[in-house]
Amino acid sequence: MRISVLNGPNLNLLGTREPAIYGSSSLDAIAGLVTERARALDVVVTWHQSNHEGALVDLVQGLPAEADGALINAAALTHTSLALRDAILAVGIPFVEVHLSNIWAREPERHRSLLADLAVGVVAGFGPQSYVLGLEALTGALRGARAP
Amino acid sequence: MRISVLNGPNLNLLGTREPAIYGSSSLDAIAGLVTERARALDVVVTWHQSNHEGALVDLVQGLPAEADGALINAAALTHTSLALRDAILAVGIPFVEVHLSNIWAREPERHRSLLADLAVGVVAGFGPQSYVLGLEALTGALRGARAP
Amino acid sequence: MRISVLNGPNLNLLGTREPAIYGSSSLDAIAGLVTERARALDVVVTWHQSNHEGALVDLVQGLPAEADGALINAAALTHTSLALRDAILAVGIPFVEVHLSNIWAREPERHRSLLADLAVGVVAGFGPQSYVLGLEALTGALRGARAP
Amino acid sequence: MRISVLNGPNLNLLGTREPAIYGSSSLDAIAGLVTERARALDVVVTWHQSNHEGALVDLVQGLPAEADGALINAAALTHTSLALRDAILAVGIPFVEVHLSNIWAREPERHRSLLADLAVGVVAGFGPQSYVLGLEALTGALRGARAP
Amino acid sequence: MRISVLNGPNLNLLGTREPAIYGSSSLDAIAGLVTERARALDVVVTWHQSNHEGALVDLVQGLPAEADGALINAAALTHTSLALRDAILAVGIPFVEVHLSNIWAREPERHRSLLADLAVGVVAGFGPQSYVLGLEALTGALRGARAP
Amino acid sequence: MRISVLNGPNLNLLGTREPAIYGSSSLDAIAGLVTERARALDVVVTWHQSNHEGALVDLVQGLPAEADGALINAAALTHTSLALRDAILAVGIPFVEVHLSNIWAREPERHRSLLADLAVGVVAGFGPQSYVLGLEALTGALRGARAP
Amino acid sequence: MRISVLNGPNLNLLGTREPAIYGSSSLDAIAGLVTERARALDVVVTWHQSNHEGALVDLVQGLPAEADGALINAAALTHTSLALRDAILAVGIPFVEVHLSNIWAREPERHRSLLADLAVGVVAGFGPQSYVLGLEALTGALRGARAP
Amino acid sequence: MRISVLNGPNLNLLGTREPAIYGSSSLDAIAGLVTERARALDVVVTWHQSNHEGALVDLVQGLPAEADGALINAAALTHTSLALRDAILAVGIPFVEVHLSNIWAREPERHRSLLADLAVGVVAGFGPQSYVLGLEALTGALRGARAP
Amino acid sequence: MRISVLNGPNLNLLGTREPAIYGSSSLDAIAGLVTERARALDVVVTWHQSNHEGALVDLVQGLPAEADGALINAAALTHTSLALRDAILAVGIPFVEVHLSNIWAREPERHRSLLADLAVGVVAGFGPQSYVLGLEALTGALRGARAP
Amino acid sequence: MRISVLNGPNLNLLGTREPAIYGSSSLDAIAGLVTERARALDVVVTWHQSNHEGALVDLVQGLPAEADGALINAAALTHTSLALRDAILAVGIPFVEVHLSNIWAREPERHRSLLADLAVGVVAGFGPQSYVLGLEALTGALRGARAP
Amino acid sequence: MRISVLNGPNLNLLGTREPAIYGSSSLDAIAGLVTERARALDVVVTWHQSNHEGALVDLVQGLPAEADGALINAAALTHTSLALRDAILAVGIPFVEVHLSNIWAREPERHRSLLADLAVGVVAGFGPQSYVLGLEALTGALRGARAP
Amino acid sequence: MRISVLNGPNLNLLGTREPAIYGSSSLDAIAGLVTERARALDVVVTWHQSNHEGALVDLVQGLPAEADGALINAAALTHTSLALRDAILAVGIPFVEVHLSNIWAREPERHRSLLADLAVGVVAGFGPQSYVLGLEALTGALRGARAP
Repeated sequence: MRISVLNGPNLNLLGTREPAIYGSSSLDAIAGLVTERARALDVVVTWHQSNHEGALVDLVQGLPAEADGALINAAALTHTSLALRDAILAVGIPFVEVHLSNIWAREPERHRSLLADLAVGVVAGFGPQSYVLGLEALTGALRGARAP
Repeated sequence: MRISVLNGPNLNLLGTREPAIYGSSSLDAIAGLVTERARALDVVVTWHQSNHEGALVDLVQGLPAEADGALINAAALTHTSLALRDAILAVGIPFVEVHLSNIWAREPERHRSLLADLAVGVVAGFGPQSYVLGLEALTGALRGARAP
Repeated sequence: MRISVLNGPNLNLLGTREPAIYGSSSLDAIAGLVTERARALDVVVTWHQSNHEGALVDLVQGLPAEADGALINAAALTHTSLALRDAILAVGIPFVEVHLSNIWAREPERHRSLLADLAVGVVAGFGPQSYVLGLEALTGALRGARAP
Repeated sequence: MRISVLNGPNLNLLGTREPAIYGSSSLDAIAGLVTERARALDVVVTWHQSNHEGALVDLVQGLPAEADGALINAAALTHTSLALRDAILAVGIPFVEVHLSNIWAREPERHRSLLADLAVGVVAGFGPQSYVLGLEALTGALRGARAP
Repeated sequence: MRISVLNGPNLNLLGTREPAIYGSSSLDAIAGLVTERARALDVVVTWHQSNHEGALVDLVQGLPAEADGALINAAALTHTSLALRDAILAVGIPFVEVHLSNIWAREPERHRSLLADLAVGVVAGFGPQSYVLGLEALTGALRGARAP
Repeated sequence: MRISVLNGPNLNLLGTREPAIYGSSSLDAIAGLVTERARALDVVVTWHQSNHEGALVDLVQGLPAEADGALINAAALTHTSLALRDAILAVGIPFVEVHLSNIWAREPERHRSLLADLAVGVVAGFGPQSYVLGLEALTGALRGARAP
Repeated sequence: MRISVLNGPNLNLLGTREPAIYGSSSLDAIAGLVTERARALDVVVTWHQSNHEGALVDLVQGLPAEADGALINAAALTHTSLALRDAILAVGIPFVEVHLSNIWAREPERHRSLLADLAVGVVAGFGPQSYVLGLEALTGALRGARAP
Repeated sequence: MRISVLNGPNLNLLGTREPAIYGSSSLDAIAGLVTERARALDVVVTWHQSNHEGALVDLVQGLPAEADGALINAAALTHTSLALRDAILAVGIPFVEVHLSNIWAREPERHRSLLADLAVGVVAGFGPQSYVLGLEALTGALRGARAP
Repeated sequence: MRISVLNGPNLNLLGTREPAIYGSSSLDAIAGLVTERARALDVVVTWHQSNHEGALVDLVQGLPAEADGALINAAALTHTSLALRDAILAVGIPFVEVHLSNIWAREPERHRSLLADLAVGVVAGFGPQSYVLGLEALTGALRGARAP
Repeated sequence: MRISVLNGPNLNLLGTREPAIYGSSSLDAIAGLVTERARALDVVVTWHQSNHEGALVDLVQGLPAEADGALINAAALTHTSLALRDAILAVGIPFVEVHLSNIWAREPERHRSLLADLAVGVVAGFGPQSYVLGLEALTGALRGARAP
Repeated sequence: MRISVLNGPNLNLLGTREPAIYGSSSLDAIAGLVTERARALDVVVTWHQSNHEGALVDLVQGLPAEADGALINAAALTHTSLALRDAILAVGIPFVEVHLSNIWAREPERHRSLLADLAVGVVAGFGPQSYVLGLEALTGALRGARAP
Repeated sequence: MRISVLNGPNLNLLGTREPAIYGSSSLDAIAGLVTERARALDVVVTWHQSNHEGALVDLVQGLPAEADGALINAAALTHTSLALRDAILAVGIPFVEVHLSNIWAREPERHRSLLADLAVGVVAGFGPQSYVLGLEALTGALRGARAP
């Protein structure tokens, strides 16, 4: 099974950016955690990050060719990008929305996601662990095996 | 480690209630899943369900005496019960909010939670798996170990 | 045919409670009227009243086991109880919403019902007669015989 | 006793118009049902329909000369016509508001009635039966005999 | 193929009414343009105008008997008439909404159409040309031939 | 000088309609008062009343042919008719908006006029006297002589 | 009969202030017009102007001692001063609200008056003539003689 | 004189619950303060607490049989329970609303009370002293003696 | 201990102003009540009233020099004066907000206070007794002795 | 005459993307249709597509150098891009807004265009035909020849 | 060149008022800074401060007689005074709006200025430096020399 | 000291773009003015412009490596880009927001900035001078020397 992980604007700064909210792990460290867990689940992971909305739209369009499902942390674009929503609607790939922070405990403009209703589900608030849990959830959903 | 699970109104009907939204597992089956996973994590689980807001407030008040943390699926009361919010504020126990369905893909009045900003995090949209992932997330948070 | 009637908070005070709005009949007197009319229609009526939201949720959950349809006057909970709405969605039983008073001629917070869109129809403003007409309407709808 | 029935725009198309919502009875068939029931109640019925707001205002103004009460189904004008409301206020005749469909289970702009707070009561959602029940309710109210 | 054109209130004043917005062509001149183009497309055109909402409802109700599709410029009623919307829903005929002016470059109350979501499509802002283009678009859609 | 007076829906009932709000003078009596005062001012008055929005649109369209200015009391249509507003914009005739009652001391939906910003000015709240004062104000404005 | 005229902030600048909106008459010239007309009506006029909300509250409190009624042009305070409203409620004197300009043809924040529902009526949009017509209307109302 | 005190959800936790907001006194200690002051005022106090909305409705319904007036601290239900409001309207007993904390210095959803407009008055923000002051205010009001 | 009492616009009219709402005591009588109670509490009271917002701002600025705390009844300015709020923020003196009437049982624009969240607490609805209870509450708070 | 066509995000997926909404033609096929029709009208067409907002801004800035007018289908950016609006304002080139689908029959966030009020006009809902009709409309407008 | 500086309510407390927000400079110290800089720019400065809205309106009315332009820091009145806005409109003098604090980083009611759209520009957030920069900006604008 | 200047979409068109709003200076001319003033202040300036949101996010992320502070004119993105806001939060560099035009005197959607509450302060409305004043303000703030 192949899974792609898409990371939106400013996530490349993780570790130095507002550590009280986002924690002290770098994005590379999170990629390491995810890859390790993916190996145990027999999943191949592809990792992307971009600060450009258009580049992320391109990446979403390319998902069907490279993966069976996706983890998407669109960061700020979660709340503003209708173009990203359209791209997801166009390719129709199953994905899980993940967030490091608990977005509902933050400012109101971060409470509404333009993507969440299209997702299999959402995992938010557990720091890097959100990615690992999201990977497990997505893998489970793709394998049609929610319960053992 | 001891963890309590609180289930709100109408969850006792799971399996027969709107299966297109909530799936076909009964609440007992979910309890089984959670207990099994808990055993593996060396956690003792206590299970509660009530259709009465007042009874749920009583249960929340009793949490410090019986558990180190909680999973809470307050169902419809998530969106309307300020009394439940107050009870949680009063006992100050760490908890994870869980939902079977992806509440942001449903009607607007289910998009706003009166509890979410108090939670460690939220897991929603994976059916019974939401409970299992929530248990892991909570256990990890309580043990101060988000990544292996 | 079996029909249950559910009455919400404070309806047990009918006759003494704000008679200018609710009239001088007691709830027992209304039950008498409904039972008499039911007999003529060959319908068996079960009568319930509670001041507790949770108890009303329990009663709604029990409806499929005891009736073919219901008359529901949820009183104040008509306007505030998402849990009652969920219970009705869960059991999916046909019901008619009834009110003694014309709720649209009262305060704004009584103009919006959280249940009405789930009902077969609504009858409001005719005092105890609302129950009798609601019974006729429900019986007609259940017998699939709107016109002779 | 004399009762007038006023029907608003597009009701002349009943039977062919959106049958999933409005049913397959023609307006003539409904008039037949109402007249039959009226005869049993010793009531004389006058029947009107118009697609013109101004014509309906004229009809409301003429009500005191031809009837003791009215059934009014103003259709789309229920939600937009302040002129119709003024006419009803001007003549002050008792009336019951009726609707074939359950207007609260439809689009939001059909949830608010500009007439309902002036009515004795409202009956909605029972197809042609709404007219028959409305006739009974109005007759009962006019005879000052809600309960035997 | 037969197509009817419905024109709403005040369009009979075209040419003298606010020429800065609506141009200097009379409604007759526009009818001439449309008829000429219709002849080339082998379409028979019927032309209507009324200042009365009720009369326009009557005309919409008569559309199935006289045409295969319609061009509708409801003028001010575009933004206020729920009765016209109901009439269109009732007869279910395909139509194109046309406007002489660019309604989104005018006052806010003209930005929302109560009819547009029922239309095949909308053409607005090209003066009399809007009617000609709308005729082509409607003809194309009715013939199921969007591309040659 | 010629001045037309336009009266909207239900004003034909004046004297019997809600006398606590509209007073006990009939519309004829008011026409008498206005005509008498007009004679003193050397003005010829034409008097109109209709319950039909479309008829009032026709009347506004005919104003330039019959008058130099108008008094308009559009009654309930003051607050809902965009078509009437368009007609006034189309003919561009100077007018004064008059009301018998103080519309700002009544229900909120009567506080907003769709016509007032097009008027020379507004006179409201003085009963039949509103028409007489409106006539003086309009005459003064048309003669370009606001003060002697 | 004694009548006081109260003028609010910036009216002392009339004649030089935004003449396109307020005209070229000074406040003194308007006082002259009003006094002249008052003499003909056998009315004694007292004239006030202040830029201070508190001073205007004091003046309203003093009205019962000096006048039988008032003309009030509160200018900008019309739209913001709850204190002025309270003062008028406290003394309960009959008054007419006047404005030089047509306030409904200006910015939205000038469309809502905090005083208008307490007034006998409103006259607006006729320049200095608004004061003269307001004087006539108030005199008529106080003499209980709306029609001859 | 007999006075009942009703305490809503979570007040049984006082002393341990959010002491920064609610202080360190237990509910028993407050009951002691109130009883002591009541004795000096020659008043008999009955004390109630429940976490259940339905139970509180029952208690309000029983008030006329056991007391001449009431102190009500409905806690979180102050802001959400229309059923409690209806119960109070039904029994019509005079009461004073009390709160330990200054609810207007807290979150917006605690600024609006569904009960306050029915109360004789409100005392909030003085910790346990709120109950004592409320008792004095209620006693004074019941004895028709607000000032010595 | 020294306490100042500030009274806002129109309170100088107490006793004659809208007695159904504000009662028949004059402001002097209330000052008498407060002074008497203050003597018993060993408190010196200074009394102020003004109809001018600016003068009240000056008074608030002078509070630290003349008192240890304040009772403030800002009347209509409670709901509109951001300048008064700023003055209170600037001097930082503890105060209790008092109102004669129950402001939540009045018009909506009186339900929101711009000052209440800065207060120690609020007392409203007990007529002159509001001042006396406010004095006791403030004294207790200043002496750090809420309970004996 | 030279005309540029700008296509926004995800339009490169046409034919495979949500065919129920957007049809089965590829963007290349539409370009073919437009070019063919342009040749008949003696117009040279330049064709652009990008998923990047910034790239589209660059393209708009380059329009004056390459075209006399434009067809713009900004897709999702129609509803969110103020930068695109600014670019259009900056270059001031005449354009027609086109959409394949009827955007008013879709989700609410697609009902408002940030560009439409700057356009000559709008054509929407006719699939690829929208582009052909838009080309005709734009050509007609640029040639100052709306009618033959 | 002559420039007046107007300071609104509570600015006379600068240095002692909420120093975390407004800094520790007194208003006199700021006046010193501005005067020194003005001398270098060959500008004569007049300095005003008042806590009274009416007095500030008087001052604005006097501006044309004493200055060529103004710096205005209306403090709390920035957000509430329509009278001040009218005064500025009346005299039409060029001014720069200045604020010590960054008003957009504070409470929402301080985000909207009733004056800013009339200003040449706004300088906010730099403490006393805001005045000095505002002086430079205003001087530059008045001399028609934005760049050297 | 090093300062970077970031310019958003369409600012590269300055001089030719809407000169009535933005003036006739090119962006290069403004860069010249700023550089000249910077030299006098002993500051090194780096200059950037992009039409791409993603590129601007990249630039903000690079700020700590190249500058001690920034001037940011995000143009249209000021009002829509949450991603830019996040980038600024991530790097935490002090900046001043500048605008050529007075954004509060323009359309409503330009009144709200997503960046302003993070800025040291804002300078807007003085054309190219806004940049020069912003440079002085930022330099002063960075040197901790607001007043000499």
